[in-house]
Amino acid sequence: MKHLLSTADLDAATATEILDIATEMASVSGREIKKLPTLRGRTVVNLFYEDSTRTRISFEAAAKRLSADVINFSAKGSSVEKGESLKDTAWTLQAMGADAVVIRHPASGAPHRLADWVTGSVLNAGDGTHEHPTQALLDAYTIRSRMGRIDGLHVVIVGDVLHSRVARSNVLLLNTLGAKVTLVGPPTLVPTDLNASVQVAYDLDAVLPQADVVMMLRVQKERMTDSYFPSAREYSRRYGLDGARLRRMPAHAIVMHPGPMNRGMEITPEVADSPRSTIVEQVTNGVSVRMACLYLLLGGAR
Amino acid sequence: MKHLLSTADLDAATATEILDIATEMASVSGREIKKLPTLRGRTVVNLFYEDSTRTRISFEAAAKRLSADVINFSAKGSSVEKGESLKDTAWTLQAMGADAVVIRHPASGAPHRLADWVTGSVLNAGDGTHEHPTQALLDAYTIRSRMGRIDGLHVVIVGDVLHSRVARSNVLLLNTLGAKVTLVGPPTLVPTDLNASVQVAYDLDAVLPQADVVMMLRVQKERMTDSYFPSAREYSRRYGLDGARLRRMPAHAIVMHPGPMNRGMEITPEVADSPRSTIVEQVTNGVSVRMACLYLLLGGAR
Amino acid sequence: MKHLLSTADLDAATATEILDIATEMASVSGREIKKLPTLRGRTVVNLFYEDSTRTRISFEAAAKRLSADVINFSAKGSSVEKGESLKDTAWTLQAMGADAVVIRHPASGAPHRLADWVTGSVLNAGDGTHEHPTQALLDAYTIRSRMGRIDGLHVVIVGDVLHSRVARSNVLLLNTLGAKVTLVGPPTLVPTDLNASVQVAYDLDAVLPQADVVMMLRVQKERMTDSYFPSAREYSRRYGLDGARLRRMPAHAIVMHPGPMNRGMEITPEVADSPRSTIVEQVTNGVSVRMACLYLLLGGAR
Repeated sequence: MKHLLSTADLDAATATEILDIATEMASVSGREIKKLPTLRGRTVVNLFYEDSTRTRISFEAAAKRLSADVINFSAKGSSVEKGESLKDTAWTLQAMGADAVVIRHPASGAPHRLADWVTGSVLNAGDGTHEHPTQALLDAYTIRSRMGRIDGLHVVIVGDVLHSRVARSNVLLLNTLGAKVTLVGPPTLVPTDLNASVQVAYDLDAVLPQADVVMMLRVQKERMTDSYFPSAREYSRRYGLDGARLRRMPAHAIVMHPGPMNRGMEITPEVADSPRSTIVEQVTNGVSVRMACLYLLLGGAR
Repeated sequence: MKHLLSTADLDAATATEILDIATEMASVSGREIKKLPTLRGRTVVNLFYEDSTRTRISFEAAAKRLSADVINFSAKGSSVEKGESLKDTAWTLQAMGADAVVIRHPASGAPHRLADWVTGSVLNAGDGTHEHPTQALLDAYTIRSRMGRIDGLHVVIVGDVLHSRVARSNVLLLNTLGAKVTLVGPPTLVPTDLNASVQVAYDLDAVLPQADVVMMLRVQKERMTDSYFPSAREYSRRYGLDGARLRRMPAHAIVMHPGPMNRGMEITPEVADSPRSTIVEQVTNGVSVRMACLYLLLGGAR
Repeated sequence: MKHLLSTADLDAATATEILDIATEMASVSGREIKKLPTLRGRTVVNLFYEDSTRTRISFEAAAKRLSADVINFSAKGSSVEKGESLKDTAWTLQAMGADAVVIRHPASGAPHRLADWVTGSVLNAGDGTHEHPTQALLDAYTIRSRMGRIDGLHVVIVGDVLHSRVARSNVLLLNTLGAKVTLVGPPTLVPTDLNASVQVAYDLDAVLPQADVVMMLRVQKERMTDSYFPSAREYSRRYGLDGARLRRMPAHAIVMHPGPMNRGMEITPEVADSPRSTIVEQVTNGVSVRMACLYLLLGGAR
């Protein structure tokens, strides 16, 4: 595997290999010596055209634990604003010998274009409304570590699926790994043409008793002024997860959220802080999963 | 000691231990090999909700000299602006395995709240108008290295004490270490209810001949439009330190300033650049003192 | 050599030594182990008062490959905005033990002033319209590696020479290394009083057949509203390098550009992407040349 651009590119064996390596990474990270020499002398560039402290820090921590050098490149206030094209930026990174480029970009498909222009590995850290594959991998890791398996589970994804790269990557990966997926949200915000096997529902309360995993999506406040978006109150009432809805779920079912949360909007503090929420674990697992991805992409001989 | 939140938490023995370790750190830093392996594999996060290049760089340099990995997190343009609460950010840092979080925050008390939510150590790098303990420790270190002792000295702190976390932390620590403290400033800007033993004066010229140490506070220009603030000219005339006032001080007395200075406002260039000014040493000592704090908080077995 | 402030300070022997060391650095960087322990424990500060991601990253990559610690200091949102003078900032860096300061500043001469105030080495990464010596060195390196020599070559520099620190540094260094230089641009934008031996021309088409190297300067769009600047269309028609002009050049001649390019303005994509363009190599060579400069300035015993 050279790049990590889309969960659609991952077959079940490769995805499982990543999760297995991540498990080993997590075990190493818990010991006294947290740093591995694996990527010493390699350079990982974080190329972020959108702000995302959480994802950037997670990749930075992962790369540093593997002893790579990390260079952060924020497009804000950069030569990008002087009119530099992605191609010229790619040339720069290529010329500087970046072994891996972690890219977040507002345009869907930008990581794929970047991969044509650099010889290093490209890791998609979120592109437009398209994909966010390491988020899907860390979610899969979290499900597997909580539930013991992924195959055969029923995962309910709730919210603005249409604009969610988190949802898109998860749907594709969960399909590959054998889970059954149901999408729940306002009819205007749930696509029916995903290239994957999913069910669609609009009544959250009816679906919850059959869920093994309930994955809440973040409401992007900048979208709430769109005409197809319900009012905040209406959204929260119909699709927000509160204590009453948590109690409708089976006792073994877990609650996930990619963060950062809008507490009180799509999820109440009671649910977010409950022992059935995996939100903190997801962040922890993110570092291990990103270590695994960097290891798999860069770990071989050059 | 787990956290460093307030100088009020430091007894004389602990404070002295920090200064002693800092002395050793300074001695190591002067040698050919400046880097110690002490914190290899540990991660220090600089979590800055207010800009402070100077303090951030000082902590970053200190952590790197101890071989820690440093991750800088600036709240500007971060998910904080997307509405993430301090609690969610804390979860993220916790989940990512931060061994220490250095936090600067505009709200007094934020570091204490953070300490409830993470298992790593929290170092307060300035919270609102409350405290800035490493500044007080580096000031104490500087006094001790210039004067040979702290106990029994007379330290005069001049300026807007009311809003100064530097002053507050210094008053508490200097009390603990046996110095006598006099606060001088406009009556509206000198609190009389500090939980510490201090004297208050309004006439700087009358106090200077009895001072061993004169610590000038930075005028925060954003406060100068407040109604209780004197005009710039009036402030400078009454509380600014110029050459004439320097000559009123005893020959052995030193001048301190936490930086960055407003040259010509609270201090004239003649005074700032005089050999009796410790301003450059304070910055140098800041790195050693922060190395000592990180060492003491993180150096033990995990 | 203590500082690198201006190419005017470099004699031919020193400049050639830098290029030779850079050649060795490039050879090391191509191998399995890319990281040299040369500057372990040393601290390099990137002090950028102007945005320049490309140059900052290049210096950061160079320093990290030599195992130095790198601290990035951006003047945006720093205490500089709180009114801190360059002198106070210099004191801070000095006090923190910076072994080298890489400075970019909008004021011509700022690096020279900084060099008076710190004991570490100062590297000029671009000051106002004055100089950008590492750019000239990497350009010389690129010419030498493509053409086998610099002495006796004819280098044509095209564009707004008047405001270009890249042009100024190149003219001085190319003179020192024995190249013949012709400046081409609008009469209002080509200085005739450079302290160097150059020819000036206004007709690009007439000069191209005699060129060994054509160095295109970046059009700074913020200058295009100046009254002495031609219209974009006029500029591009008279001084832009397109395929037709490329074919007027001798078959062995190369095209250079310091980046980032305005594709379609001073250079067409056809030319930028042609095998005779050295634009990507220039970026690659930038890291090696900056490694060489840091090595030469810092590599000796302290």
